[in-house]
Amino acid sequence: MERIPILKMGRYLLVTVQVDMHDRLAMTLQDDLTNQIVEHKARAVLIDISTLEIVDSFIGRMLANIAAMSRVLDAMTVVVGMQPSVAITLVELGLSLKGVYTALNVEKGMEFLTTSLSGEDGADAGNTG
Amino acid sequence: MERIPILKMGRYLLVTVQVDMHDRLAMTLQDDLTNQIVEHKARAVLIDISTLEIVDSFIGRMLANIAAMSRVLDAMTVVVGMQPSVAITLVELGLSLKGVYTALNVEKGMEFLTTSLSGEDGADAGNTG
Repeated sequence: MERIPILKMGRYLLVTVQVDMHDRLAMTLQDDLTNQIVEHKARAVLIDISTLEIVDSFIGRMLANIAAMSRVLDAMTVVVGMQPSVAITLVELGLSLKGVYTALNVEKGMEFLTTSLSGEDGADAGNTG
Repeated sequence: MERIPILKMGRYLLVTVQVDMHDRLAMTLQDDLTNQIVEHKARAVLIDISTLEIVDSFIGRMLANIAAMSRVLDAMTVVVGMQPSVAITLVELGLSLKGVYTALNVEKGMEFLTTSLSGEDGADAGNTG
């Protein structure tokens, strides 16, 4: 199964990362995500990384890339479910996930998006990097 | 990563199956799901199998088991995103997924659940097996 599923939830797309990322899988995900953002006119992408116990600069860069691509397609990126150890590693690696919003879990991420996108003025909540 | 993440979405739990299932992973998923149903007082479990291209009797039995366990915990089980080839295989294997509701995608699954659980009387929609 060389594809990470992208679930459409209303105006948002939800991606659950649960396998080890490698180059090709990351490329496929980026392709699929950008296509689906356009196809479904999605306003945001939620990426759940709650099962990731280890994060390296490759994953960090991939998340930042997805956020950058989404932004030019007028969609926000929210990374949810990050484990404490992953947060520590990211900071130690010097990866601040610029442009990526974060939330504790999917529910909180969706709440944040609903607030942000209702008035298009709540974008200063969360981590803007 | 020997664990399939379970995402809480309001009163529902969402599971995206995207790795090859083996015995231990299936057992862990059953344990985690039943625990979370109780912990979060979840009313339903949505299982997305859109990336599964092959399904065997093991997966079929696992889905039926999850549905049975959820039912005794007063939660519904909805399998979403099944590929046409998987539906063909399931029928050919003689697995009718008794007790498992199905929907085309997560959105339709959630609509179905919202309708079913609002009046607790819509349970005849969908596939009751």
